Amino acid sequence: MPRPLKLAAAQMGPIHQTSKRTDTIHRMLTLLQRASSLGAQVVLFPECALTTFFPRHLITDASLLSSYYEHDDDLPNAPNTKLLFDEAKKLKIDISLGYAEMTPGGKSYNTSLYFSAHTGTILAKYRKIHLPGTSEPFSNPEAVNQLEKRYFHIGDLGFSAFRAPDLVPGVLKKGDVKEEDEGRTEGKGDPIMGMMICNDRRWPESWRCYGLQGVEVVLCGYNTAGYAPDLWGTRRVMTPGEAEEDAVFHHKLVMQSNSYMNSCFSISAAKCGLEDGKYDLIAGSCITSPEGHILAEAKTRGDEIVFAEVDLEDCRQGKEKTFDFARHRRVEAYGLITERTGVDEGGLL
Amino acid sequence: MPRPLKLAAAQMGPIHQTSKRTDTIHRMLTLLQRASSLGAQVVLFPECALTTFFPRHLITDASLLSSYYEHDDDLPNAPNTKLLFDEAKKLKIDISLGYAEMTPGGKSYNTSLYFSAHTGTILAKYRKIHLPGTSEPFSNPEAVNQLEKRYFHIGDLGFSAFRAPDLVPGVLKKGDVKEEDEGRTEGKGDPIMGMMICNDRRWPESWRCYGLQGVEVVLCGYNTAGYAPDLWGTRRVMTPGEAEEDAVFHHKLVMQSNSYMNSCFSISAAKCGLEDGKYDLIAGSCITSPEGHILAEAKTRGDEIVFAEVDLEDCRQGKEKTFDFARHRRVEAYGLITERTGVDEGGLL
Repeated sequence: MPRPLKLAAAQMGPIHQTSKRTDTIHRMLTLLQRASSLGAQVVLFPECALTTFFPRHLITDASLLSSYYEHDDDLPNAPNTKLLFDEAKKLKIDISLGYAEMTPGGKSYNTSLYFSAHTGTILAKYRKIHLPGTSEPFSNPEAVNQLEKRYFHIGDLGFSAFRAPDLVPGVLKKGDVKEEDEGRTEGKGDPIMGMMICNDRRWPESWRCYGLQGVEVVLCGYNTAGYAPDLWGTRRVMTPGEAEEDAVFHHKLVMQSNSYMNSCFSISAAKCGLEDGKYDLIAGSCITSPEGHILAEAKTRGDEIVFAEVDLEDCRQGKEKTFDFARHRRVEAYGLITERTGVDEGGLL
Repeated sequence: MPRPLKLAAAQMGPIHQTSKRTDTIHRMLTLLQRASSLGAQVVLFPECALTTFFPRHLITDASLLSSYYEHDDDLPNAPNTKLLFDEAKKLKIDISLGYAEMTPGGKSYNTSLYFSAHTGTILAKYRKIHLPGTSEPFSNPEAVNQLEKRYFHIGDLGFSAFRAPDLVPGVLKKGDVKEEDEGRTEGKGDPIMGMMICNDRRWPESWRCYGLQGVEVVLCGYNTAGYAPDLWGTRRVMTPGEAEEDAVFHHKLVMQSNSYMNSCFSISAAKCGLEDGKYDLIAGSCITSPEGHILAEAKTRGDEIVFAEVDLEDCRQGKEKTFDFARHRRVEAYGLITERTGVDEGGLL
């Protein structure tokens, strides 16, 4: 029996340091309404969707830095973001959204949440595990910094897949199970989802942890530099155009291959264009199939909805055949993956 | 300092059940000579390069089945294969070669070896870990079997990277280290290699185990069906042409993305074309870069040398930046990868 689902990425053009929160939220509402007109049931917004991608800046002013984080844990009711969640509920669209999180205890994370418009609650939260870049700024003033390791803690919630209810017709709901449904479980058939953020998508471990939970849709927002001269050990010299093309190539390559190797759909949503007037972020938001094909992709470098209707049952062929983990994986041969972090701890290099 | 290396895949057209060993070896000698004329230093032959890909057949005749294995552990001096190793030594070309191995103790493996023409010895052996398919034949007589799990044991040698000596100029040899070489180690700079076989390339775990040993060149021979109606849980119906195109797409996708995610070169060598008169195997042998680009690929569906000259130092950018494992990997989040084999042992499905 088919399990249809209508997915969308809400790609966003640049948000500047000078952009107003209310303007950004209104852009997101417009995107939600466009997605709704296409019938979307799930909409993914980018990583750190509410502000410029501030880890490119060395920020020494504490109150300025503080302004980039969400301090209220209850985003659906927080003044900054309530409008967005209200609209999602009104349109009955689940949303996933990246933001800089500051906990009440003062710990900061690069976070993504999944909000069910049907239950009206945050179903799941993910905190980015693979923080790229450095803690200290580059010494060369020409270099573009990537200070995520400075501004965020390593995510402490693991890779936890979850089911999103009320999206797929025919799935038994809580309290719905009747005698004639023997053998059927409530919620079985609800899509299994997993969130990752930007750089996580380049790490097959992120995908595999979700794959081993049977993930059917991976959600990944990103801010990825197209051209960022880091002047830091880089041998190859590329023009900005070549560098941007290569960055898009790598983005699609890892989305496609990891979707294939884990037999799942994926949605990726970019924040893109020239942020803060001069920092280039790639576009290339896309939806990929469990066979690794691109089903839909962004055509612009600005605010845009990328939409695809899929059948979750298309995950089944891969999961039951080529990538039937239970029959084919050999964990006894994988020890190094969890025993060793880097090469230099005993490698050949 | 550049570390140049000239790599080649020796793609082979079909070998039939009726093909003679001596003819096959002579085809391989011709390929080696072609590779030599291009200056190749390392040549990779396909998986099970010496025979037809017999796991597609249910073979009940014990002596016929036995004839597909190499029973002599000393391939460089075995009557079946001596000519090939002699030619490799003469041409000073290292070779890697897949074959069906039968140990003196009667255990069978889908094996690959790496032979150094410079030392005249087998430097490393790999036994295939991810055996695809089934132990029992499909019930539908129209289906094409994939009986590797019947004919081979799971490889018991792990994923062990190794260094291949005497290929890269300027590397200190054993006994060569002098006082003024303080801090330099003998063999440091020799390429770090890892072998995998066919289906292994679809499993990111194989690549990561090598990546964690600093691998610079992955060698992967394969026999991959272009169109094999298995009539076994397959939902999508494709024409043979579409199926073949998709199989080549998947092959390249995993070679490119896993090379990128582990910052290594890779060589893949197909046995291809219509074997045993009617079983279609894809071609698509290629050499990929640590950035995931295809540097060279097969143009035919028969015997062909695919050649590229590379600089091993091109692995450095990825290994020291985006994929600096020591700085970015978070093994505490990867537990599931080694704790759980399949999804059904506690997953959401």
